[in-house]
Amino acid sequence: MKSHTEYLTFNTKKRREYINITSEVESEVRKSGVQEGLVLVSAMHITAAVYVNDAESGLIEDIDQWADRLAPFGPDYRHHRTGEDNGDAHLKNLLIGFQVTLPITKGRIDFGPWQQIYYAEFDGRRRKRLLIKIIGE
Amino acid sequence: MKSHTEYLTFNTKKRREYINITSEVESEVRKSGVQEGLVLVSAMHITAAVYVNDAESGLIEDIDQWADRLAPFGPDYRHHRTGEDNGDAHLKNLLIGFQVTLPITKGRIDFGPWQQIYYAEFDGRRRKRLLIKIIGE
Amino acid sequence: MKSHTEYLTFNTKKRREYINITSEVESEVRKSGVQEGLVLVSAMHITAAVYVNDAESGLIEDIDQWADRLAPFGPDYRHHRTGEDNGDAHLKNLLIGFQVTLPITKGRIDFGPWQQIYYAEFDGRRRKRLLIKIIGE
Repeated sequence: MKSHTEYLTFNTKKRREYINITSEVESEVRKSGVQEGLVLVSAMHITAAVYVNDAESGLIEDIDQWADRLAPFGPDYRHHRTGEDNGDAHLKNLLIGFQVTLPITKGRIDFGPWQQIYYAEFDGRRRKRLLIKIIGE
Repeated sequence: MKSHTEYLTFNTKKRREYINITSEVESEVRKSGVQEGLVLVSAMHITAAVYVNDAESGLIEDIDQWADRLAPFGPDYRHHRTGEDNGDAHLKNLLIGFQVTLPITKGRIDFGPWQQIYYAEFDGRRRKRLLIKIIGE
Repeated sequence: MKSHTEYLTFNTKKRREYINITSEVESEVRKSGVQEGLVLVSAMHITAAVYVNDAESGLIEDIDQWADRLAPFGPDYRHHRTGEDNGDAHLKNLLIGFQVTLPITKGRIDFGPWQQIYYAEFDGRRRKRLLIKIIGE
């Protein structure tokens, strides 16, 4: 069994930002030499998400508005008694999920026609990390 | 390490439909010959979901109504400027998730008493695909 | 390839309860002897969740209230025609997700600074199980 690990670092300018990381993940799959296996893409922070969806700017705005409707930014969370103001970001992380596991077939991510991998930052403007772990052979 | 890959194809009659695929996934696990490992079941489209829950018709209606309450079908999404009308289906995909990873123990899916695998179509009436990837030994 | 499987059992006093299981999962990773691989932590019931987030008591209350706002406990679900009263717990399971897959690097869970693994019980006061499956080498 082969394995390969890489870390990506983000430091977004805006509090919330959506970054297409498909080519970075594909590049690590190539480097790993794995032909058949799995690649885990997982945020290392609990105020960000990783998801697979469309690279369409209108949809990305829809996702942002939808996530903020269901888990609104605001001052009323108990978590804010600790001095934080990012309770919404923790809930958005739970809503959308912090990781995806993608299949590798014949050395490539085995994707459908519109699937793209996104890192969704919900509490940015500071250094955040993401892990890519590939196993297979 | 062994690996095994299969694709399922769906073309539902209704826009939204919920299909129990447990026996299809179990069949692929048997074919793979894997005794200890993981099986990834992952939609290849971004307007469908894969989840594990109960095979109870009332609950399936509850899930459908709930998903449509939190991510309603309607004309107001920015994504619709592209000519699409399926913004809700993209959000339902994010709400419920597009994949599950199931444990294989002694050659079978290691499930609790009520766990069943469902493909949830949110934008059907056309050809959609799902991938089953098994790794282990 | 090595593999290792363990089951945890819960029987909570309250209907809804949030239990930090990070040390139990870390212990199984050590026992497995796997240096590079994946650990799947997956509820075996469809009325519970597994998630990764902060071990902060205020946030845990926020998560509980948020999940109950989006998937409220109540008598109106079609699923209750079967005699059950836990329709909300099935929906909370779908909202938060029933499993996480964590990377193992150099024999340890490869976590960011605040990541902790939680078992979230939504329909407790009875025996429920969770599976830990480790593969790698």
